Amino acid sequence: MDSTFDNANPADLNAVLLPGGAFNADALRVVRPAQQFVQEFNNAHKPIAFICHAPWLLVSAGLARGRTVTSYHTIQDDLRNASAKWVEKEVVRDGNFVSSRQPTDIPAFNREMIALFSEPKAKVRSAS
Amino acid sequence: MDSTFDNANPADLNAVLLPGGAFNADALRVVRPAQQFVQEFNNAHKPIAFICHAPWLLVSAGLARGRTVTSYHTIQDDLRNASAKWVEKEVVRDGNFVSSRQPTDIPAFNREMIALFSEPKAKVRSAS
Repeated sequence: MDSTFDNANPADLNAVLLPGGAFNADALRVVRPAQQFVQEFNNAHKPIAFICHAPWLLVSAGLARGRTVTSYHTIQDDLRNASAKWVEKEVVRDGNFVSSRQPTDIPAFNREMIALFSEPKAKVRSAS
Repeated sequence: MDSTFDNANPADLNAVLLPGGAFNADALRVVRPAQQFVQEFNNAHKPIAFICHAPWLLVSAGLARGRTVTSYHTIQDDLRNASAKWVEKEVVRDGNFVSSRQPTDIPAFNREMIALFSEPKAKVRSAS
């Protein structure tokens, strides 16, 4: 199902994957419906997977504070300054978040993302 | 004179202009010689002009804290989280910094940049 933020309802969906790309992620982080979408998703403790530059949306949605994440190395200062705990690993799981750094991490990212998306809902809780 | 960070000496130069571009600025912010270059420049109270996404280098060089700046709107959270005072204006002057948001600000940016670069050195002091 293709949809847009204007007509996608977080309550209808079970998981989110935020892909990277510096231009895409730079544009998406300031889109208010995108911010609200991931906020509602996180409030419901639903799984969110993100890679490369995608975590900028979490920074601008106010969801990075206190969370353990990784990202493309160039934006680690932005995540640390947003009070996330940034770690240098190919994949990081923290509650309902799975994150990876870059395209070479995709095998590990896919493995952990599928594991997260397959867990019973009650197990997928925020670690914060 | 064309040069690279490996052989450019801040002591030989009087002013720096950091252009924007999301890809360029995303790459430049993690280049250690680039960080050291703007740190030495700022320590010497020499003028630095920056526009669009260029301020990411100031964030990663630790030069944003306490400074009043503007930038491309998408990165304002990164500057605020780095403890800069971010303002929405076509051009902002703070001591040895001049900043603007986007290409449409270039006439105002050029005017203030040239004014800053033309001031006697003793007047160009950091406001922090």
